Amino acid sequence: MSQPKQTLSVAMIGTGFIAKAHSNAFRQVTHFFDVPYELGLKVLCGRNRAKLESAAAQWGWKEVSTDWQAVVARPDIDVVDIAVPNNLHALIAIAAAKAGKMVWCEKPLATSLPEAESMAQAVCEIPNLVWFNYRRIPAVVFAKRLIDEGRLGQTYHYRALYLNQSGNDPSKAATWRYQRSEAGLGAAGDLLSHSIDSALYLNGPITELTAMMHTFVPGRDVDDATFFLARYANGSVGTFEATRHGVGCRNRHAFEINGSKGMLRFNLEHMNQLEFYDAAETPSQQGMKNITVTGPDHPYSDNFWKPGHIIGYEHTFIALLGDFLKALARKESRYPDFDDAVAVQRVLDAVERSAISRGWIKL
Amino acid sequence: MSQPKQTLSVAMIGTGFIAKAHSNAFRQVTHFFDVPYELGLKVLCGRNRAKLESAAAQWGWKEVSTDWQAVVARPDIDVVDIAVPNNLHALIAIAAAKAGKMVWCEKPLATSLPEAESMAQAVCEIPNLVWFNYRRIPAVVFAKRLIDEGRLGQTYHYRALYLNQSGNDPSKAATWRYQRSEAGLGAAGDLLSHSIDSALYLNGPITELTAMMHTFVPGRDVDDATFFLARYANGSVGTFEATRHGVGCRNRHAFEINGSKGMLRFNLEHMNQLEFYDAAETPSQQGMKNITVTGPDHPYSDNFWKPGHIIGYEHTFIALLGDFLKALARKESRYPDFDDAVAVQRVLDAVERSAISRGWIKL
Amino acid sequence: MSQPKQTLSVAMIGTGFIAKAHSNAFRQVTHFFDVPYELGLKVLCGRNRAKLESAAAQWGWKEVSTDWQAVVARPDIDVVDIAVPNNLHALIAIAAAKAGKMVWCEKPLATSLPEAESMAQAVCEIPNLVWFNYRRIPAVVFAKRLIDEGRLGQTYHYRALYLNQSGNDPSKAATWRYQRSEAGLGAAGDLLSHSIDSALYLNGPITELTAMMHTFVPGRDVDDATFFLARYANGSVGTFEATRHGVGCRNRHAFEINGSKGMLRFNLEHMNQLEFYDAAETPSQQGMKNITVTGPDHPYSDNFWKPGHIIGYEHTFIALLGDFLKALARKESRYPDFDDAVAVQRVLDAVERSAISRGWIKL
Amino acid sequence: MSQPKQTLSVAMIGTGFIAKAHSNAFRQVTHFFDVPYELGLKVLCGRNRAKLESAAAQWGWKEVSTDWQAVVARPDIDVVDIAVPNNLHALIAIAAAKAGKMVWCEKPLATSLPEAESMAQAVCEIPNLVWFNYRRIPAVVFAKRLIDEGRLGQTYHYRALYLNQSGNDPSKAATWRYQRSEAGLGAAGDLLSHSIDSALYLNGPITELTAMMHTFVPGRDVDDATFFLARYANGSVGTFEATRHGVGCRNRHAFEINGSKGMLRFNLEHMNQLEFYDAAETPSQQGMKNITVTGPDHPYSDNFWKPGHIIGYEHTFIALLGDFLKALARKESRYPDFDDAVAVQRVLDAVERSAISRGWIKL
Repeated sequence: MSQPKQTLSVAMIGTGFIAKAHSNAFRQVTHFFDVPYELGLKVLCGRNRAKLESAAAQWGWKEVSTDWQAVVARPDIDVVDIAVPNNLHALIAIAAAKAGKMVWCEKPLATSLPEAESMAQAVCEIPNLVWFNYRRIPAVVFAKRLIDEGRLGQTYHYRALYLNQSGNDPSKAATWRYQRSEAGLGAAGDLLSHSIDSALYLNGPITELTAMMHTFVPGRDVDDATFFLARYANGSVGTFEATRHGVGCRNRHAFEINGSKGMLRFNLEHMNQLEFYDAAETPSQQGMKNITVTGPDHPYSDNFWKPGHIIGYEHTFIALLGDFLKALARKESRYPDFDDAVAVQRVLDAVERSAISRGWIKL
Repeated sequence: MSQPKQTLSVAMIGTGFIAKAHSNAFRQVTHFFDVPYELGLKVLCGRNRAKLESAAAQWGWKEVSTDWQAVVARPDIDVVDIAVPNNLHALIAIAAAKAGKMVWCEKPLATSLPEAESMAQAVCEIPNLVWFNYRRIPAVVFAKRLIDEGRLGQTYHYRALYLNQSGNDPSKAATWRYQRSEAGLGAAGDLLSHSIDSALYLNGPITELTAMMHTFVPGRDVDDATFFLARYANGSVGTFEATRHGVGCRNRHAFEINGSKGMLRFNLEHMNQLEFYDAAETPSQQGMKNITVTGPDHPYSDNFWKPGHIIGYEHTFIALLGDFLKALARKESRYPDFDDAVAVQRVLDAVERSAISRGWIKL
Repeated sequence: MSQPKQTLSVAMIGTGFIAKAHSNAFRQVTHFFDVPYELGLKVLCGRNRAKLESAAAQWGWKEVSTDWQAVVARPDIDVVDIAVPNNLHALIAIAAAKAGKMVWCEKPLATSLPEAESMAQAVCEIPNLVWFNYRRIPAVVFAKRLIDEGRLGQTYHYRALYLNQSGNDPSKAATWRYQRSEAGLGAAGDLLSHSIDSALYLNGPITELTAMMHTFVPGRDVDDATFFLARYANGSVGTFEATRHGVGCRNRHAFEINGSKGMLRFNLEHMNQLEFYDAAETPSQQGMKNITVTGPDHPYSDNFWKPGHIIGYEHTFIALLGDFLKALARKESRYPDFDDAVAVQRVLDAVERSAISRGWIKL
Repeated sequence: MSQPKQTLSVAMIGTGFIAKAHSNAFRQVTHFFDVPYELGLKVLCGRNRAKLESAAAQWGWKEVSTDWQAVVARPDIDVVDIAVPNNLHALIAIAAAKAGKMVWCEKPLATSLPEAESMAQAVCEIPNLVWFNYRRIPAVVFAKRLIDEGRLGQTYHYRALYLNQSGNDPSKAATWRYQRSEAGLGAAGDLLSHSIDSALYLNGPITELTAMMHTFVPGRDVDDATFFLARYANGSVGTFEATRHGVGCRNRHAFEINGSKGMLRFNLEHMNQLEFYDAAETPSQQGMKNITVTGPDHPYSDNFWKPGHIIGYEHTFIALLGDFLKALARKESRYPDFDDAVAVQRVLDAVERSAISRGWIKL
């Protein structure tokens, strides 16, 4: 902890729920990760001054502004963090990149593939990050480790679900996430994008898919539920389902992988656990094993608490940011970045096209 | 229990695992169901005389025979029960129907839709039954009751899985179930047929679907895994996945239903339980509730043991047969019968055609 | 299956719930166990003729009688099976033993230790069995195997619970089980006796204990709940709790064992499962593993169905009887027998004395 | 958030694991609770200067000191927070109280009842807090709410377990927690104290108990495991078990409560969940319900994230501190305080005496 720290001055655009998670990560990252940076919470940008001032007071942002364009251009800002509705991501990200700022952006990256590609192009020389935070859950990183060690053998199936019940809740269904003009996509952008990101991370590229999108509520112009069947480059097959009408589920981001040597299962609602079935064990002793991924020897178990002491939702942002800053210090690649997000967007684009054409699409 | 009993003399064709489950049901049904019949275990038919004699001794079959055609024609036989590979179902069922016998047949009913239709035609005047035993699991019948009472509200999603790992096990993969000539279909016939039957029972007709079939093992001529996306007549959408490469799962026949007012979840591996989320409860008290469906006031809870005393796999056959015999006595319709099985076969047929055409098929 | 079978003619005294489980076991044992016996359901004895005739018709008992003493003396009876309230066990068992019959008796064996000892004395030359059926659950026998193989290392803790809610249910609380004159003990005899039997089987002798008994309902003369703390001969320590006021639990007969190398957990409500934590695994891969004990290579997995196809409550009686008959054919010791039941009664006796003296009792 | 904030300057003594949890709470409390205070992390005290400097840099403590006595006397300190081995609590707490500081102290409060009483006496005029953090878990507070609303009816049973496996781990077993001179008690002080605090909070006073203490490891001078049976003032009965030899469990602080109208179950390893069985429901619909206590309308659900987004171990400290500061602002009583901790110590004292006398002790 003894090296001198460089301060990265951050301007964040956004004051909603996700912005709170980002503020928290900025405050907490250096408490849990040994990185040669400090984050300066310099400017908080938004449209509503009262909300801005309240949020700034709560989290210790030094300044507030309702003019993000002016802020992005300021020479005393190192990082622009984007936590606003999807349709504004590109505008801000490209402006920030042009001003030479590091760009951190919420997911989904964009409202369309071309938009995402132009954003990735804009930041290609600049350190950048997309908040696919669920990739940095200890249990998910541990799953990746087991897969890379060959513990599942040949992958047969990758099964993904992301279910919540927001679409069935009139109070939630009035937000920007239910407007095509602001969100681009509905469940597909909000939920399925996470499932796809996890799948690409854990199981590699998808080669073709056939999809269905469905809207239950008359008059709503985004998808309430999106499904697809897929084939992967590694020979496995997959199913994806994302819905905002999954009544009974608050935040069930789940996957299961069956391989020739075993099975893995994860559910965000129990995010400190990973289930592992090891088919290499003596047959009579095989069973689904529930591993609490809080150490010893688990991803991030040296960063947070100690074995048996669980972490929560917010730590996924802290871990993602901690990894990014460590990579930044080493000038290494910083996953998940805009290129990863473009890969997700490419799948979403194929999903949308397939749902319209009602046929298989090759990627 | 005091009425005089009529004896139904049964001839069963088959000596495999399923035949054992049938023999058991014949022996046990009158112990648990108050029906005006006794079942006479008259003739056991098969090809291998040693196996026949051993099975007959074990279960108390009076005679054995290697000539099913002769047996089916015997005047002292009332019921022909078919427990042989799928490709023989039609031949035997039609012959039995022609001889005026009641016909009970294992699922899937046939190896093709036309075959199934001709079988249904043949038995249309005769009491008949198809062993879709999982429809008579207490928890599944209880799910049906809750749905019929409107506890789920408008159905949004029906999600079905049937996963086992037999395809990954060389010893199992050598059986007739892995030969197109005998089985017709692979995972689709063996596993998916159960999922479809349960779905039609619980959620009603499917109107269109798009499917994928996949074979992992080179040289194998049946599907190892079959998937489809579906739309239902009631406006809900569904996903189906059946696989014999679901390593980690021995017999996971599972479904989940999300509706506007709640959620149901079932898994055959825990067949005495039904999970129910009641979204009509006070929000702070909502949660997934695990109901042990062994009474009081549950389907079949007066037939078997008492609350907290679970039943096993075999009881699903007993319950199905008990229901059939009760209906027979009342001359009522006897679900699930050949017509139900044709409905399943119609979906399987669409699945197969969709997997080939790579497009949506309307039913 | 080819050896000639000897018929054992059984007279059963009792027509209640447990008698039904016995009748079922008599009917089913030869279907699942290859033993050189057939059981003849010869005489069903009881007090109520209408109930007798109904039960006899249902299960195929050849005769009924309201005079058990006459029946026990009949030369054509080989086995006397006792399924009546506890206070009648000794009388019948001793009479049957004197008549030279094999004696099978429900648990708890007796209403007091001296009574149990005199019963064991009476049958010491005769094959005998006590229906501690939960000892023959596949998962419990598998637990025993893992323990014997040293997979738990040095045992530290044995924790036993048996919770049901019958005492809170006025309809149940009116039965003989709630009368000291007929039952001897309440929760202690009914429930705790099972926990003690399992503990002695799995963890060996108890050396000392301190107990508490409690009755919640005014005027009730048996214990509603009984607890004790114990030390075992193997150096481990244990807790026991049995209650009929465990609202929320229908039949939770559960134990947990912690040893230096791992942990086992069982709950009758999920009786096809055994949970095993193997502390010899790599630390990062340790977790509670849920093993479905339906094969392959599990106790009784060759007798019943196949992997992933669960068994129910009744199979515990079948397995116990199957084991007994196999042992009988080989003239081997037949656990659990009256001597085992005396060992349980000795602990119950110490429990009762400790609850009165409010101090530790050595065994 | 607009009122001017008063800064409370804190001096914390201790640099171990728990001190890290305290530092985090000091940093985070104002981000999640709207209180009229800010916490100044003024001085971090400890014995090892290198550790002190590292911890201070990580968490932003302004100064470090190896002389706690000098620090406690400083006029610029408002709060003394004690996070050192148990045997030092009294010395520091009493000194701090004499200096007029607010005192916050880790649990267990003391190494003996008289010590605890003298501490409580010392702070009786001063705002004080004991870090029984598990009392402020949302699920536990929600359990309290359900109980207070009468949802369990008459309480029958309170069953508490606290199991970890530290005693079986040589690396952990070398710490101060395994030395009587520093820890006072072993599992009883470390683990059982939490169970007792939760029990007193949820179920009220204990009136009598009988206990057993056991040490598995030769030469160790504290208890590895402590057990007791108890009677409560409300007529219920209870069992308690705390052990450091609970191999298979990392941090299983669990309780179950059975009442005439229902059951509650909690396990810290799944701390965002509370299980509730409502025996007032229609019998066929009764089951154990798993409630994720992250809102809506749950304790602290407005403070932390949103429904379906879980919190972790550290939030229990934040919630406890948030409640304390809110109460401080209102000059209300601040549970859990030194008086609560004395109540716990009184039970621990009885436990120890009972284990020695081998008899029941009245409280």
